[in-house]
Amino acid sequence: MSRPQPKRVAESFTTMSELVMPNDTNPQDNLMGGNMLRWMDICCAICAGKHCARPVVTASVDNVAFNSAIRNGEVITLEASVTRAFNTSIEVYVEVFAATMQGTHPRRTHHAYFTFVALDKDNGSPVQVPELTPLTEVEQQRYTAALRRRELRLVLAGRLKPEEAQHLQELFRPH
Amino acid sequence: MSRPQPKRVAESFTTMSELVMPNDTNPQDNLMGGNMLRWMDICCAICAGKHCARPVVTASVDNVAFNSAIRNGEVITLEASVTRAFNTSIEVYVEVFAATMQGTHPRRTHHAYFTFVALDKDNGSPVQVPELTPLTEVEQQRYTAALRRRELRLVLAGRLKPEEAQHLQELFRPH
Amino acid sequence: MSRPQPKRVAESFTTMSELVMPNDTNPQDNLMGGNMLRWMDICCAICAGKHCARPVVTASVDNVAFNSAIRNGEVITLEASVTRAFNTSIEVYVEVFAATMQGTHPRRTHHAYFTFVALDKDNGSPVQVPELTPLTEVEQQRYTAALRRRELRLVLAGRLKPEEAQHLQELFRPH
Amino acid sequence: MSRPQPKRVAESFTTMSELVMPNDTNPQDNLMGGNMLRWMDICCAICAGKHCARPVVTASVDNVAFNSAIRNGEVITLEASVTRAFNTSIEVYVEVFAATMQGTHPRRTHHAYFTFVALDKDNGSPVQVPELTPLTEVEQQRYTAALRRRELRLVLAGRLKPEEAQHLQELFRPH
Amino acid sequence: MSRPQPKRVAESFTTMSELVMPNDTNPQDNLMGGNMLRWMDICCAICAGKHCARPVVTASVDNVAFNSAIRNGEVITLEASVTRAFNTSIEVYVEVFAATMQGTHPRRTHHAYFTFVALDKDNGSPVQVPELTPLTEVEQQRYTAALRRRELRLVLAGRLKPEEAQHLQELFRPH
Amino acid sequence: MSRPQPKRVAESFTTMSELVMPNDTNPQDNLMGGNMLRWMDICCAICAGKHCARPVVTASVDNVAFNSAIRNGEVITLEASVTRAFNTSIEVYVEVFAATMQGTHPRRTHHAYFTFVALDKDNGSPVQVPELTPLTEVEQQRYTAALRRRELRLVLAGRLKPEEAQHLQELFRPH
Repeated sequence: MSRPQPKRVAESFTTMSELVMPNDTNPQDNLMGGNMLRWMDICCAICAGKHCARPVVTASVDNVAFNSAIRNGEVITLEASVTRAFNTSIEVYVEVFAATMQGTHPRRTHHAYFTFVALDKDNGSPVQVPELTPLTEVEQQRYTAALRRRELRLVLAGRLKPEEAQHLQELFRPH
Repeated sequence: MSRPQPKRVAESFTTMSELVMPNDTNPQDNLMGGNMLRWMDICCAICAGKHCARPVVTASVDNVAFNSAIRNGEVITLEASVTRAFNTSIEVYVEVFAATMQGTHPRRTHHAYFTFVALDKDNGSPVQVPELTPLTEVEQQRYTAALRRRELRLVLAGRLKPEEAQHLQELFRPH
Repeated sequence: MSRPQPKRVAESFTTMSELVMPNDTNPQDNLMGGNMLRWMDICCAICAGKHCARPVVTASVDNVAFNSAIRNGEVITLEASVTRAFNTSIEVYVEVFAATMQGTHPRRTHHAYFTFVALDKDNGSPVQVPELTPLTEVEQQRYTAALRRRELRLVLAGRLKPEEAQHLQELFRPH
Repeated sequence: MSRPQPKRVAESFTTMSELVMPNDTNPQDNLMGGNMLRWMDICCAICAGKHCARPVVTASVDNVAFNSAIRNGEVITLEASVTRAFNTSIEVYVEVFAATMQGTHPRRTHHAYFTFVALDKDNGSPVQVPELTPLTEVEQQRYTAALRRRELRLVLAGRLKPEEAQHLQELFRPH
Repeated sequence: MSRPQPKRVAESFTTMSELVMPNDTNPQDNLMGGNMLRWMDICCAICAGKHCARPVVTASVDNVAFNSAIRNGEVITLEASVTRAFNTSIEVYVEVFAATMQGTHPRRTHHAYFTFVALDKDNGSPVQVPELTPLTEVEQQRYTAALRRRELRLVLAGRLKPEEAQHLQELFRPH
Repeated sequence: MSRPQPKRVAESFTTMSELVMPNDTNPQDNLMGGNMLRWMDICCAICAGKHCARPVVTASVDNVAFNSAIRNGEVITLEASVTRAFNTSIEVYVEVFAATMQGTHPRRTHHAYFTFVALDKDNGSPVQVPELTPLTEVEQQRYTAALRRRELRLVLAGRLKPEEAQHLQELFRPH
């Protein structure tokens, strides 16, 4: 089967709004970290599914940064974009923004990278995904950096030797 | 206190994506109607809160139409827009679209009108809300029809006599 | 297949009690509107299922009025009754009452009309439902008014022209 | 403060209906035992709260018998009645009935005894509760047997020696 | 089929930690009794499943004692051990300990006995379970006392006459 | 205030068991990735809280690897250990193991690093945490590698220049 047509970032861009309710908070009355991770996973999975047009499963999560607590009653918005497609996997970047219900105190609170694998609907084995065509400057930067993040995941999983991680070596080479 | 500046529909437009999971289904493996109503309420409340820049509470729900069942595993998108602001209340229109994770079988599945009252943050009593400035043709049609829907709510609540419901009489007058 | 035997209102009357817990509240510590809608849907579906003796799905929701906020820790009681059976659909009226755990501050807080369609268990297509025999005066009033509400739903769905809505015209005709 | 007026069983009788949804089931697609216990606790707490007109907390649970599995999609009804009031505590009996949505296969599936302590609203310490006046024969039988169950709880908690448990001794004395 | 090899208590000992969140509390901001029961049931079911190496279903719950309220934000630990295996059923003892997140105010808060029946995976009928070999003194005490608790369950279920409950008679015989 | 006494890994080791129920699955009937993340966060937070004896909040999550899908009805066990304490933050390593209820098909399914910041209970600002004393060989390896992971987090957050990341440079230096 030939590889499906490449897609643009905008074709799978996904946004989700949520209102933080008592149900979602920790004992300090802030959004519980684990619930934030759960929403990020759902938003990224929808985004990855749109790009691949296949069922997808989470393969790894990286660099989740929690910059600011979110209070009970605040409104959050998640925005997920594909950064790069590899052979059978796809990396998605998600940013989270929060503000009060009244629109005050707007800020970026979280960001993370989620990687998904696309599966064949019938036999459940990994299948090739459409390539990504980055257009804007930001899209191209993320596309390039995705290679380094992928090397890092392989090194951390023990599936690539550090001395063979070509893009990371460039980054960390002393000048 | 003078009335706040009017706002445009686009300033409070709100969209939400959800992935229907087993947690959300009824015994027929479709999205449970009550969960759909819960998501509509959240999406409309966020939209109303953005327009009013105040806490809001649901006052009534009308004409919720369920056109098509949504299956476990499908992705839904809710889109909520303010249709008209009255003195202390605001009507929001919400439409729901569904499709499979693979993007197939796209369709409009639900729509409804939710009315909210804006509350003073300190004493909890109703406060004046910003007026709405409709711009597009669709926005103006919804703005006009909102008066009829409001009369209907008042008639049904026994707070307006049918023979005094001017806009409804026009609608139902035999030609 | 001949139409099943008519049933009385009392045969499907359904009541549900719930204790409002933190899990169910909004950031103002009141019962969240969306959760109220979810409970109403469940209570009405059980009631409709009893009358039809079939699986039922929500078709529309009308005139949900929220008269009074419900506090965390209060006890609510929902009461659902069939108002009228049409050919394959059935209208259910639900009222909600609240009070503190100590029984103080009793009041009616919500009411609404839910319409369900009965489905064949095997092929999922709509099936005829038993007629309703209204007995008390209140049951007969609701039975009669159900025709007007049905015309209204059809007009709002664009499936009936306002000038052909005979019962609504009577109601809104200027004297 | 003098003891509040005695109450009858009917004054606090509480009934709750629930529709078993996928959310509530175990991996065998039956209602999970723990969820049944959670609903029983809520139903009994509402019943105990009505009798005591006070906040109540669960003190113990006894003799919960699971007689029959409940399937996804079935409707259950819980019925809770006060059996006896002691000084600051109160015993509640709950029975659960299940049937399909179509009303077929009706049966009693569970029963149990829950004991609650009534608390002063301000200082949280136990307070005297109204006595119960049993009227029917069944109410009187449960009222009498409650003494034995209470002795049993005290014996099991190590707060009463078996040889001092007068009512239990009568029951188990060999003839 | 010959009976499976006996097992020791340690082979199925199960421990679970939970952090009490707003989601789990009652209106007094304490852990809701029903949620505690739900967690106990899950912990005991995992323990019973390990011993039996079969699917298990809850058959009864006894002597659940609530000794101390648990506050929002506290950490709880459940510990479940098999006390005795009968022919097709198995009794599990569970204790719950709580403390603040900072480790202060440690205490035992709840304990209970849960009985499970092991089921054949294919036809769902009860199957023989492995016997238990109690080793420590505490394990032997619980093993012995399990007979009395079983008689009690049979008496309470009306399946054994009090005068035939040999072990209970010994306990309650006046000296 | 002088720094609190160092602690050993065993003092805060935390284990949690969960039974995967329909409630927790995705439309493919496997445990949803987001729910796994939520449980990991809770388990690690309890572990971090025990070490710090303070309220803690999630600061970042790294290298979450999903190695194997978990089926509805399987039992999972999470094990969390502190790997290293920095000044006001602490890194926790969590591994997840799964098996069927019958104990078959045991395997390691997930692992990840979570970083928490300890907060002063009164003013909510970060406070110094107890140092960790690694004892076993595995504990010492994780303790040493934690420095590299921390550098990586700082580089990824733009708070450390790659050419200043001393430990990472050593790792990626070509030989």
